[in-house]
Amino acid sequence: MVCAIQIYEKPELSNPVLIEGLPGIGFVANISALHLIHELDAKLFAEITSSSFQDLAVTTEKGGTRSPINQLYYHKSRDGGRDLIIWYGNTQALTTFGQYELCGRVLDLAQELGCQYIITLGGFKKEQTTKKPQIYCAATDLETLKTPLNLGAKIMVGQIFGIAGITIGLAKLRNLKAFSLLVETTGTYPDAEAARQALTALTEFLNLKTDLTRLDLAAEKTKKILESFGLIRQEQEKKKEESPFRWFV
Amino acid sequence: MVCAIQIYEKPELSNPVLIEGLPGIGFVANISALHLIHELDAKLFAEITSSSFQDLAVTTEKGGTRSPINQLYYHKSRDGGRDLIIWYGNTQALTTFGQYELCGRVLDLAQELGCQYIITLGGFKKEQTTKKPQIYCAATDLETLKTPLNLGAKIMVGQIFGIAGITIGLAKLRNLKAFSLLVETTGTYPDAEAARQALTALTEFLNLKTDLTRLDLAAEKTKKILESFGLIRQEQEKKKEESPFRWFV
Amino acid sequence: MVCAIQIYEKPELSNPVLIEGLPGIGFVANISALHLIHELDAKLFAEITSSSFQDLAVTTEKGGTRSPINQLYYHKSRDGGRDLIIWYGNTQALTTFGQYELCGRVLDLAQELGCQYIITLGGFKKEQTTKKPQIYCAATDLETLKTPLNLGAKIMVGQIFGIAGITIGLAKLRNLKAFSLLVETTGTYPDAEAARQALTALTEFLNLKTDLTRLDLAAEKTKKILESFGLIRQEQEKKKEESPFRWFV
Amino acid sequence: MVCAIQIYEKPELSNPVLIEGLPGIGFVANISALHLIHELDAKLFAEITSSSFQDLAVTTEKGGTRSPINQLYYHKSRDGGRDLIIWYGNTQALTTFGQYELCGRVLDLAQELGCQYIITLGGFKKEQTTKKPQIYCAATDLETLKTPLNLGAKIMVGQIFGIAGITIGLAKLRNLKAFSLLVETTGTYPDAEAARQALTALTEFLNLKTDLTRLDLAAEKTKKILESFGLIRQEQEKKKEESPFRWFV
Repeated sequence: MVCAIQIYEKPELSNPVLIEGLPGIGFVANISALHLIHELDAKLFAEITSSSFQDLAVTTEKGGTRSPINQLYYHKSRDGGRDLIIWYGNTQALTTFGQYELCGRVLDLAQELGCQYIITLGGFKKEQTTKKPQIYCAATDLETLKTPLNLGAKIMVGQIFGIAGITIGLAKLRNLKAFSLLVETTGTYPDAEAARQALTALTEFLNLKTDLTRLDLAAEKTKKILESFGLIRQEQEKKKEESPFRWFV
Repeated sequence: MVCAIQIYEKPELSNPVLIEGLPGIGFVANISALHLIHELDAKLFAEITSSSFQDLAVTTEKGGTRSPINQLYYHKSRDGGRDLIIWYGNTQALTTFGQYELCGRVLDLAQELGCQYIITLGGFKKEQTTKKPQIYCAATDLETLKTPLNLGAKIMVGQIFGIAGITIGLAKLRNLKAFSLLVETTGTYPDAEAARQALTALTEFLNLKTDLTRLDLAAEKTKKILESFGLIRQEQEKKKEESPFRWFV
Repeated sequence: MVCAIQIYEKPELSNPVLIEGLPGIGFVANISALHLIHELDAKLFAEITSSSFQDLAVTTEKGGTRSPINQLYYHKSRDGGRDLIIWYGNTQALTTFGQYELCGRVLDLAQELGCQYIITLGGFKKEQTTKKPQIYCAATDLETLKTPLNLGAKIMVGQIFGIAGITIGLAKLRNLKAFSLLVETTGTYPDAEAARQALTALTEFLNLKTDLTRLDLAAEKTKKILESFGLIRQEQEKKKEESPFRWFV
Repeated sequence: MVCAIQIYEKPELSNPVLIEGLPGIGFVANISALHLIHELDAKLFAEITSSSFQDLAVTTEKGGTRSPINQLYYHKSRDGGRDLIIWYGNTQALTTFGQYELCGRVLDLAQELGCQYIITLGGFKKEQTTKKPQIYCAATDLETLKTPLNLGAKIMVGQIFGIAGITIGLAKLRNLKAFSLLVETTGTYPDAEAARQALTALTEFLNLKTDLTRLDLAAEKTKKILESFGLIRQEQEKKKEESPFRWFV
């Protein structure tokens, strides 16, 4: 299967922007996407599972279950902003193979819905950060780069890991425009402040009026979800559970 | 190939329940499934091999061989109980990729036979257990959860690893109902007592009259089979044999 | 691609026996197959490469190259023996996935040529061996097992690793007959004596008159080939070269 | 996807030679290919991305991005030389599976364009090298081997790792002619001197008049690109970042 996509609805969107918000450094993207979904009351239209996700389920407080999943939400513009596709999830894929596959499938679907513009979010790991964390940026091309620069971002120097990075690469190959907003963070906890900077820039670009006061809630919920999957913990512990025979005595 | 399925018969079943019984923590599911197959004289109708299983064969006492395999049995209700599909095997897949593939293929076949309800069994690892081990549960949805709660299970809090977990996740995505019964076990040996609890709840739900006195036999046989595959042993030993060149000098 | 098969000829064979002779413990199978190919002047009819083989080429003395490959040879009976397909190669696949894929493809082709009977060869690792190493056996079924028992083999107890093992398993699932001849060996060098025992039993069964005096040559050549691929060496050295970045500084 | 190829143009070439120039030992091939592309003003006609490449993007100095990619360029002969296809890239695949897949796809495309002759370049790691590093060679067959021998190369003894090696192997299986030029290098830095030897022999064979004075520029650029991908660094550092959870806290 690699990726299995369940499409609940194919929304008619006008030139939508795809916003990538999977868990990563400082969980900047993940918090931001979750907050946007809540604030905009964005609508779930597709779910993706992948054989490159963890093979487990976690329980919710009430005995329901949560599985490793990626989701696509859409938001139709109300007030002159742009239509959005929000790519949210509780995991990235565990292998590079799975990452490319996942990204390719999401881009396929986004393009089918008319998307030609992508913004990926992320954290930029620093030993120390300032009170108002700086935003860095990179883009598929220098023309597209002007946009994040105009939003106050500095030019990123370094590597952009994971989905945030390969999305830019695959976008370029598909002749799509994309830029990445990467906010300074120590990356050691779900960083609401970094997410605030990302969202401030993002909503300015998208012409969205979004209340950022409840960002702490999104950060708290993100922490809870990712803890339940064991994705926030010590490197040492991880190793043990990754053993292929972990379910045996 | 990934998964190769040999289907010997396509039974006509009435709204069957799929019961997952692969080896896992405390071998609770595996013992339970084996016992059910014996007691109900369930009929083998499909066998699955996967390129994500171990690449070996083990000998039986008489010089025959046993290979890593999953099997599907069916049981037609005789006395007002429900038709069953029992998913038995001597291994889970060795990689998450293989796990999802395996689970997806079994669900495909089960759905083709009209199955819309799944029960996964397993152990819930605890340092210590009581004389009558407690059952924990989780489900695809809160409505379905009522059933195991009514059977005396408590709400599970934590991660459900392997097939027992991803089956719940994939079931949800396919709009199927599923719950998991996870019995306390130290997980260090094939735990007949834990299996007894699982089967007591399961047979009550399924309205099956099943003799549980010979459960020790199923536990013993399970131990023998899994030992022959080297699946019950020290972590240290495993490492050595997983070397890709293990067959060379 | 996984496996790419180049078929040079589709020989018309009468109820042929497939003999598996890939490198493994003590290189018993590999030496035996090579010797048979030479003595019978068997004809190469197919070559298989796999993306699960090592990604390298090795040079021959004269500047030619040798790549990781599997080959199929055929031999038409001259004197009342049976037609043969000999499965020879300088490697097994590096992953279980690759092993199953490789085995499945070879069985597909063998079945297409009318083969319903398979013999896999191998070493059975012992700390010490006697002057005339004992042969052990296992089979898909107890009826087929009688044959190797009649040839003087004892019943094998334990695991049969790699292609020799999974071939038995996949054969069973395909309703083919197969048995395995596994000869005692310390497994620390290409063991001509063990190969002699395997070939003595094999040629008796196949009613082949084969000169075994030049077996040392086959053992020597086997050693040279596998050394050139680095498959006979210290565990420690292997690790270094398996690093995915081994070609970088 | 495994490999995704974007073909911008299908050039009409006359019996072209494919030159493999991916990063490897001493970056000999990579520097040589880059220099040829610049000097010949070769034209990019296809780009390949693979799910076996690293899952990241790196930034360029100006805020653009560079992704792991392979590229194919062509050069039409002007002065009696042969038409060329140059296979350039900033990475090889990270897994043997990916390597075979990548190589297979490039050979498919090259053959479609009429190519039947391949030259792979590389470094031959030595503890010490002389001022004018020696070239070694290997070939698909002894007839083809005469060519590099006539260019002053000695017969290579050993293993040819990665794409340079498997290309020879797959070429042989496809009935193509191929030889490998491997230049002595300590392999600890992008080795312009080794590249100079490779190019001197190569351009003599191809009857190309190419200025080699600016080779240092190609070496410098190669160093910069591969450093940005983190491919020139300490083994220890690599390990850390390859952790599947590297993007989490």
